[in-house]
Amino acid sequence: MAHRVGIVGFRGYSGAELVRILARHRQVRLLLLEHRADSQDRVRPRGDRGPDRAPCTPETVKQAQLEVVFLATPPEVSMDLAPWILDCGAKVIDLSGAFRLGTAENYRRWYHEEHTQPALLAEAVYGLPEFYREKIRGARLVANPGCYPTAANLALRPLIQAGLVDRRAGVVCDAKSGVSGAGRKPSLKTSFCEVTENFSAYSLLDHRHVAEVVQNAGLEESEFSFTAHLLPADRGILETIYFRTQGTSRVEEILSIYEAAYATEPFIRLYEPPHTPDLRAVQRTNFCDLGLKWDPNGARGVVVVVIDNLVKGAAGQAVQNMNILLGLAEEEALLEGIRG
Amino acid sequence: MAHRVGIVGFRGYSGAELVRILARHRQVRLLLLEHRADSQDRVRPRGDRGPDRAPCTPETVKQAQLEVVFLATPPEVSMDLAPWILDCGAKVIDLSGAFRLGTAENYRRWYHEEHTQPALLAEAVYGLPEFYREKIRGARLVANPGCYPTAANLALRPLIQAGLVDRRAGVVCDAKSGVSGAGRKPSLKTSFCEVTENFSAYSLLDHRHVAEVVQNAGLEESEFSFTAHLLPADRGILETIYFRTQGTSRVEEILSIYEAAYATEPFIRLYEPPHTPDLRAVQRTNFCDLGLKWDPNGARGVVVVVIDNLVKGAAGQAVQNMNILLGLAEEEALLEGIRG
Amino acid sequence: MAHRVGIVGFRGYSGAELVRILARHRQVRLLLLEHRADSQDRVRPRGDRGPDRAPCTPETVKQAQLEVVFLATPPEVSMDLAPWILDCGAKVIDLSGAFRLGTAENYRRWYHEEHTQPALLAEAVYGLPEFYREKIRGARLVANPGCYPTAANLALRPLIQAGLVDRRAGVVCDAKSGVSGAGRKPSLKTSFCEVTENFSAYSLLDHRHVAEVVQNAGLEESEFSFTAHLLPADRGILETIYFRTQGTSRVEEILSIYEAAYATEPFIRLYEPPHTPDLRAVQRTNFCDLGLKWDPNGARGVVVVVIDNLVKGAAGQAVQNMNILLGLAEEEALLEGIRG
Amino acid sequence: MAHRVGIVGFRGYSGAELVRILARHRQVRLLLLEHRADSQDRVRPRGDRGPDRAPCTPETVKQAQLEVVFLATPPEVSMDLAPWILDCGAKVIDLSGAFRLGTAENYRRWYHEEHTQPALLAEAVYGLPEFYREKIRGARLVANPGCYPTAANLALRPLIQAGLVDRRAGVVCDAKSGVSGAGRKPSLKTSFCEVTENFSAYSLLDHRHVAEVVQNAGLEESEFSFTAHLLPADRGILETIYFRTQGTSRVEEILSIYEAAYATEPFIRLYEPPHTPDLRAVQRTNFCDLGLKWDPNGARGVVVVVIDNLVKGAAGQAVQNMNILLGLAEEEALLEGIRG
Repeated sequence: MAHRVGIVGFRGYSGAELVRILARHRQVRLLLLEHRADSQDRVRPRGDRGPDRAPCTPETVKQAQLEVVFLATPPEVSMDLAPWILDCGAKVIDLSGAFRLGTAENYRRWYHEEHTQPALLAEAVYGLPEFYREKIRGARLVANPGCYPTAANLALRPLIQAGLVDRRAGVVCDAKSGVSGAGRKPSLKTSFCEVTENFSAYSLLDHRHVAEVVQNAGLEESEFSFTAHLLPADRGILETIYFRTQGTSRVEEILSIYEAAYATEPFIRLYEPPHTPDLRAVQRTNFCDLGLKWDPNGARGVVVVVIDNLVKGAAGQAVQNMNILLGLAEEEALLEGIRG
Repeated sequence: MAHRVGIVGFRGYSGAELVRILARHRQVRLLLLEHRADSQDRVRPRGDRGPDRAPCTPETVKQAQLEVVFLATPPEVSMDLAPWILDCGAKVIDLSGAFRLGTAENYRRWYHEEHTQPALLAEAVYGLPEFYREKIRGARLVANPGCYPTAANLALRPLIQAGLVDRRAGVVCDAKSGVSGAGRKPSLKTSFCEVTENFSAYSLLDHRHVAEVVQNAGLEESEFSFTAHLLPADRGILETIYFRTQGTSRVEEILSIYEAAYATEPFIRLYEPPHTPDLRAVQRTNFCDLGLKWDPNGARGVVVVVIDNLVKGAAGQAVQNMNILLGLAEEEALLEGIRG
Repeated sequence: MAHRVGIVGFRGYSGAELVRILARHRQVRLLLLEHRADSQDRVRPRGDRGPDRAPCTPETVKQAQLEVVFLATPPEVSMDLAPWILDCGAKVIDLSGAFRLGTAENYRRWYHEEHTQPALLAEAVYGLPEFYREKIRGARLVANPGCYPTAANLALRPLIQAGLVDRRAGVVCDAKSGVSGAGRKPSLKTSFCEVTENFSAYSLLDHRHVAEVVQNAGLEESEFSFTAHLLPADRGILETIYFRTQGTSRVEEILSIYEAAYATEPFIRLYEPPHTPDLRAVQRTNFCDLGLKWDPNGARGVVVVVIDNLVKGAAGQAVQNMNILLGLAEEEALLEGIRG
Repeated sequence: MAHRVGIVGFRGYSGAELVRILARHRQVRLLLLEHRADSQDRVRPRGDRGPDRAPCTPETVKQAQLEVVFLATPPEVSMDLAPWILDCGAKVIDLSGAFRLGTAENYRRWYHEEHTQPALLAEAVYGLPEFYREKIRGARLVANPGCYPTAANLALRPLIQAGLVDRRAGVVCDAKSGVSGAGRKPSLKTSFCEVTENFSAYSLLDHRHVAEVVQNAGLEESEFSFTAHLLPADRGILETIYFRTQGTSRVEEILSIYEAAYATEPFIRLYEPPHTPDLRAVQRTNFCDLGLKWDPNGARGVVVVVIDNLVKGAAGQAVQNMNILLGLAEEEALLEGIRG
C-alpha cells in the first residue's frame, strides 16, 4: 500500500534529487505539484514523462490524499504554502530555511525579513534524525536542516556534549561546497566561466547557517568562526573543523565519542586516523563521513566531515525524515548509491 | 538462490563499476579475484570491507563454484586467464579487446601483437545484446564490446541495414570520451593538469575500435572515418555521426527505422527531433540515447548518440550479458540509476 | 604618440579580453565606453581602477578623438552604434555578427531579423587578415569574423582553393567550443552545474556561422555539414574537419598547400603529422594551429584546427585588424601569451 | 647586454612557468639545462624549438657564463647540483625545499632525510622579497619559498609583528591548492578522474610547509594549525586564516597594518572589506591579494589570501629574486599577466 507524497519545487536541484530518490522508494507514490512554471524542464527521451503532475492547490492535496508534501522552495514561498498544506491534513517537510531557527527574532536577524508564520516556526521540529529522531516521529512540520549545518552539527555536537572541546579557544569551521548548493536559478556567480578553475570565500563569519549550527551544537556565536567557499564542483560539502581539546591525550578518545554517539546510525561512517574522507566517498549517497587528526602539541584537533549537499544535506535527509514520519524503515530508498 | 560470480581487475574503473552494479543485483553473490595487487584500493570507512576476496586461481574458481567470471583486465591478461577459467567450468565475460575481432589476422593488425588463443577467438560471441542476444544466450565466452563501438553500432547498424545510408559518400563518426575510458593507471596524458580546460583529438582514422565498428555495422573501412577525442570529463561518450541518405524526404523515416529496430529494447531511447541527448542523460545508467537531424539540402543526416563509457560501454553491458547468460531478467540491477 | 581607441561592451568576455590585450599595446591609449551598466564589474583590488571610462556618446567619441572603436556588443546594438560612430570619424571594428554576411537577405535568413544598415553591410570588410589583409587596410568598418568560421576558414580555404578537396563527397566540420563563446550573460545552459562533466551538441546543421564559412571557404551550403558542441571548458575551439581528396597520394602534399598559404603569416602554425594541436597549445594566444592526417584508403583526410575563441576567435583578431587599420606592426600586443 | 641564466627541471610545471616568464624578460638570455630526460616534452608546432638546450654540466655552466641557475628540481637533486653550480661562479635560485629550513635538524624532522649540504643550508637566504630583500641582494644561494608559506607569511607576519594577533588563542590556516602544486609526475592522486568533482584534505597539522611558516611568521608550532586541501583546479592557492585579536575595535586598524607593511610593494594588493579576492584575481600573475573580515563579537578575524602557486608561489617569485640578485627592476617580466 503506497503512501502518497507530493513535491513542490521539483525542477530545482534539491527537488530533482527528491524525485530521483523517491523513484526507487518502494512504498511511495509521487505527485509533482506545479507551483510556478518558472524553470525549464530537462529534455527527456520520447515517452519518458516522469511522475504525474498536478497544480499545487488545496484541491490537489486533498483529492490526491497526500500524506506528506516536500517543499523544495525559497523560504518566502514555504511560509506561504506550509499553512494551507498542513490545513489539508498533509505533513510538511520544508527544505528551505523558513522553519529552522527557533524564533521570529532569530529569523529576522539572519534572513533580513519578517517571519509570517511565527506559530508554525515554534511548532516546527528540526529534522536532524541523529539528534531529534523522536521529536521528528510526532511532527506535523519538519524543518529539514541546511547543508552546512548538517555536516557541522554531526561533527561537532558529540564532541561538545562530551565536554572535549575547549570552547574558550574557539571553534573554526572552514566549509567548502559544490555549486549546486546555490540552486538552479542562473546567476553570474554560478556561471561556468566564473566558477571553473576558480575558488572563492563568501559570507565570512556571517553566513546565515551559523545560526543553525550554534543553536544545535551547543556553542555561543562568539565561539564559532565559519566561512563558506565555492568549489569548482557540482555537488558535495567538505568542512574542516579546528578546535582545541581539554586534556585529551589520545586520538582514540575522540573516536570513541563518535563511536558512542553514532553506534546505531545507518548513515554516519568513521575513518581510521589519519585517513579522512573526500567528496567522492559520499557523492550521490546519504552518508556523512567523518575523519580526524589530533596533535598533543597544542592539543589541537581537526575533523574532516563530508556529505553530499543535495542528499544528506537536502533531499536524502528529507526522505530520511519522511521515512521516520511514516513509520517506514529509515534507510528505505537511501542505500542504493553506495559504491563498491 | 544466488549465482556466484567473480571479477578480475576490480580496482580499475570498469571493474569498480562492475562491483558497484553487482552490489545491487539481487541474484548474484560476488567474489573479487586478486590477480595482482598492482593498483591502490580506495580508502574506506571503518568496517566497510566490500565483497569477499580470494586469489585468482583455478582452486578459487572451482571451490567457489563460480558460474561467471568477468575479466576487467588488459587484453594480454585476458588471453592468459580465459582458457583456464573456462576449463574450470565458468563462463567468461571479457571486457578487454582480446576476443572482439573475428580473426587472429585482424587482431594482429589492430593490436600489433599475436593472438595467443585463436580457437577461443573464433568461439567468442560479440556481446552487443541488441543485435546478438540469441548467440550470447548460448555462449561460453562473451567479448564485451568496446565503448566507442557500442555507441557507433547502435547508431549506425539499423540505418545501414535499412539501406538508408549512401555508403559511397562515406560515414564520419566524431567521437568524444571522458577520461575514465583510458583506465585508472596514472599517465601524463590523463593527469588532471593536462586534461582540465583542455581538449584534444587522438588516433585520427586509425583507432583500433574502427575494426569493431566496421565488422558489425556493415561498412567498409574505407567508408568509415573515425576520430577519438579526450573530453575534460570523467565519464560519458558522445558521438556525432554524419552521413548522406539516398532518397529520404523526412526525418520521421529515419526515426521509424530506429523505432522498428529498438521497439522492445529496454536500454535504447530516442529523442524527438531536433532534441538530442547530452552526457548527463545517460551518466551512471545503462541507457544508450539517440537523437538526430536530417536536412534535405544535400540529404545530410546527423545522429548524436550517447552512452556512459563505464556502464553501457563496459560494466553495465557486461552485466546485461551476464543476465542473458544466466537466464535472468535482462534489466536486473541496471535500471536503478535513472534520473527522475 | 598613442592612438586613441574605445571599447563598447568591455564587461563581456570578448570585451574584457580586448581590455587585457590592449593594456599591453605600446601605441594605444584606451577608453572604456559605458553603453549600459547592464553587467557587473569584477571586484578589484583597492586603487586598481583600470582604464578611463566615459559615456558612449558622439561627444565622447569626438572629444576623445577616438580613431578606432571596438563594438563587443550584440548585433542589434552594433547596428545602432556603428553609423554614428563612423559619422564621428572613427573607424569601427565590430565583433558581433551584424556586418559579416554580405547581404541583408543573408542576414535575415540566418539571424531571423531585418538588417537596419544594409549600406554599411555592403561596405563592411570581413576581417580575416590571412585572406583579406589589403581590403582591411583601407576599411572604415571591419566585421570581425565569428569564432567557429575563423578556425574553419583558416583550415579549409587553402585546401579548397587548391582543388584538393572532393567537394561532391561533402565536408564535415565537427566543432567544439568552450563556454565563454556563449557570452557572460547568465543562463541555465551555461550554468556550472549544467556544464561540468557534461557535453552536448547544438545547432546541428543550422548554426548561423555556417553562412560565414561557406561564403569565405568556397563551398556550397549543401556540401558543408557543421555541428557545434559545448565543451566543459572556459575557452578554446577545436574543429575536426573531414574531407575526401581527389588524387592526393601523400600527406606532404596537403602540408605543402598550407605551407604555401601561410608561409609569412605570424599567427598560423603547422604540426608535424601525425601530431595535432590541443586547446592548451593556443589558449590565451592569437595563434591558429593546424594538424592533419591523410589516409590513402578512401582518400580520407582529417584536419584538426584550434584557436582561442576569445583571442584569434574574437578580441585578438580584432586587435590584429586594428593594427592593420592603423598601420602598426600586425603582431603588436599579440605575441606575449606564447608558452615556452 | 643580456644576462645569461639557466634552468634545470624545465619540463616540470614550475620550470615551464619559468621558461614562459623569462621568454618575455628583456635582459635575460635563457639556456635550458638537460639534467635527465625523465619527462615528456610537449608537442610543439613545426619550427618552434624554444630556448637553446645543453647538458647540465660544469662545462656548460662555465662556457655559457651563466650568472644565475634556477633549480626546479626535487630537494635531493637540488642538494646535488647546488654545490658545483656555485663553484662554477653562478648564483643559484632553488625552487625546492632543500634550503628553506634554517638547520639540518629541522630539515631532517620535516623532510625525513639527512641534509647533505649543511654549510650551504646555513648560507642560503630565504627568498621572500617583501621581508628579506636586502639579504637576497647579496646572496649566492636563494631558497625560493614554498607556495603555501608564501601566502601564509605575507598574510600573517605583519599582523603578528604588530602584536595584533592573540597568539594564545591559536591561528588556523586552512589552505587549498590547485593540482599543479603536486608536480607534473603522473600519480593516481593527481589523475583527472580522481580529482575532478572531488575535494580532499591532506597532511592535517603536519604538512612540511608548517616549518617554513612558523620560522618566518613569528609563531610557535603549537600556535599554528594548518591543513592542506586539493582543489579540482589547475593552479592557484587560497588560504583562509582565522585568528583572534587583542583589543582591536575596527577593521581599518588591521588594514592599516597591511598598508604600512606593503605600501611600496609592487605585488601585494589589498581589497576593500568585505570584498576578498578569488583565484581568478591572481592566476598567471605574480600578485598576492589580501582581503579580510573582522568581527568584534569574539574579536575574530579572517584573512583570505590568494596567489598563483606556480607564479608568486614558485617561478614568478624566483624571477623576482633573480631581478634583485642581478640589480634589475624587480617587476621586469612580471607585470604582463595583469587583467584589465
